Amino acid sequence: MKATLMYGPGDIRVEEIARPEIQNPTDAVLKVTLACVCGSDLWDFIDSEVLAVGRPRGHEFLGVVESVGSVVSTLQVGDLVLAPFVSSCGHCDFCLQGLQTSCRELAFFGHGGEAGGQSEAVRVPNADGTLVKLPVSIDSPLLPSLLTLSDVMCTGHHAAVTGKVKKGETVVVIGDGAVGLCAVIAAKRLGAGRIILMGRHQDRTGLGREFGATDVVAERDADGIAKVLELTGGDGAHSVLECVGTQTSIEMALSIVRAGGTVGRVGAAQYEQIPFGFGPLMRNVTISGGVAPARQYIEELMVDVLNGSINPGRVFDLEVSLDDVALGYESMANRTKIKALVRP
Amino acid sequence: MKATLMYGPGDIRVEEIARPEIQNPTDAVLKVTLACVCGSDLWDFIDSEVLAVGRPRGHEFLGVVESVGSVVSTLQVGDLVLAPFVSSCGHCDFCLQGLQTSCRELAFFGHGGEAGGQSEAVRVPNADGTLVKLPVSIDSPLLPSLLTLSDVMCTGHHAAVTGKVKKGETVVVIGDGAVGLCAVIAAKRLGAGRIILMGRHQDRTGLGREFGATDVVAERDADGIAKVLELTGGDGAHSVLECVGTQTSIEMALSIVRAGGTVGRVGAAQYEQIPFGFGPLMRNVTISGGVAPARQYIEELMVDVLNGSINPGRVFDLEVSLDDVALGYESMANRTKIKALVRP
Repeated sequence: MKATLMYGPGDIRVEEIARPEIQNPTDAVLKVTLACVCGSDLWDFIDSEVLAVGRPRGHEFLGVVESVGSVVSTLQVGDLVLAPFVSSCGHCDFCLQGLQTSCRELAFFGHGGEAGGQSEAVRVPNADGTLVKLPVSIDSPLLPSLLTLSDVMCTGHHAAVTGKVKKGETVVVIGDGAVGLCAVIAAKRLGAGRIILMGRHQDRTGLGREFGATDVVAERDADGIAKVLELTGGDGAHSVLECVGTQTSIEMALSIVRAGGTVGRVGAAQYEQIPFGFGPLMRNVTISGGVAPARQYIEELMVDVLNGSINPGRVFDLEVSLDDVALGYESMANRTKIKALVRP
Repeated sequence: MKATLMYGPGDIRVEEIARPEIQNPTDAVLKVTLACVCGSDLWDFIDSEVLAVGRPRGHEFLGVVESVGSVVSTLQVGDLVLAPFVSSCGHCDFCLQGLQTSCRELAFFGHGGEAGGQSEAVRVPNADGTLVKLPVSIDSPLLPSLLTLSDVMCTGHHAAVTGKVKKGETVVVIGDGAVGLCAVIAAKRLGAGRIILMGRHQDRTGLGREFGATDVVAERDADGIAKVLELTGGDGAHSVLECVGTQTSIEMALSIVRAGGTVGRVGAAQYEQIPFGFGPLMRNVTISGGVAPARQYIEELMVDVLNGSINPGRVFDLEVSLDDVALGYESMANRTKIKALVRP
């Protein structure tokens, strides 16, 4: 079957590899209906070593159950299901506390040479704990929005939850990528009174305004900080959702958060050290967040996708076939597109 | 009247200065009944420049109202009252949200040459917003424990609250100073299932055990980390209360906090940068805390002091007269005593 493989910077290929099979009695194998390219897929695409053996790609997908292991009890062949971006057992202490990304049986898709989600089929370990049945048909126009619950929308939501967004309060979202835009949706959904989106791509910030941003700040660094402080009467924001992950962006976050406020960070940190000493301590600033436990949020957010109150699938502004998946990577890497849907 | 003045490293003197008077209609002047020396008083005592004019000292005190400004409405001459370590208005947005240390009219004791709390009398700005009436008599044996609510006990409590101590969970307290010991009291009070106290002074960790510590780890750095991980099955603690404030202690905190856990920090940070990048982000570690809004916690904790369920006054292991206040500083600086009461 066809699968997406990464061979090095800018080198994404679709090749024939073995179709995955049930390996453990808790597995399921899905025929992939819809997948997409994640911002984190771009890390290797932009900067990696050249590989002799391609590395399978893709961890955001939904599909139809094709086969199940002998002890899988909640799923049947033919079910349309969504996977969060990692698999988790559903019953360990971390899963039960809602931190499935620290599951004691955590597994990643596309590891060990097996197909990832940007493929015709994928094996899902711990299927009962991982997969969520979708109560729609395979031709539902809601599928793109439901697919965002595999990662990007849950990641934006995690920024908002860990950033302690509260009704009526002021939120700054740093970053107008797909995660930042989903963080705007999440902040609005949680009742933020004011949502300041920091980004300089007008097409993206325009979508951000439609999602609920009340202000857009195109400036960055010192100018961006000054602008946010001006907009907030010098105080800064109750919550800052850091959806970029650079040294500049986390430092900016610390400069625009109000005393007693919280930075919810989800952008995969490219920094090692942060200036978080005496000054922020005297101001009681909290830094929270991390990699999003998408599995924890899927059911809750799905309600709002199904009733139409949120439409995160609008972040997809490109659709490609599996054969053309490289175009999706390129378009996202050069920022001409926000996020690419992949239809195997 | 007599007041404590700091002239430089190791140079604490008690001298005659002007008795404070009402300056603003919101002021009160107290005759100090009981004061104490704070760990933060030692910073200047250990390391500061030599001053030609002494700097008044003391921000932890209780006393009897001697005079009130014309608009003070909740206090009367003769009331026995407790002050938190800073004064706050009680009605701005920060005060109303419980972050009185960011009050828009925040004022410090002992500034501008006026007497601090280690004096015979002290002026308290915004008296209605700041002072709390004590429902005991001036000779109550509970006064030392009530005095801890001016700072140290509230600071330990703030570490526990911001460190999200939960019933039945595992807490590590870093530091066996007065703040760390009060953090043990606070963690126990909030229902922690296991309290691991990290400290190497046996007299102090002994008191910590009486306060509720279930385990003591005397090792520090890599050995201390290994010991805590061993005690927690390799996972680390749900909450780490960082009550020291050094680079070593905050880095240790990050190494012994469980995935999804929280570091509540209250030790005045002597570091600028912390390693809080990709690794802790993948583990969803939160850093919270800061300077404690003592005013917010006084009433709640006072209930438990009055009913005898907590006895934080036990951290006082030295009592000096005002004339001998320098002995209190010296004994705390050389670690022969935990904390000194001062009786003017």
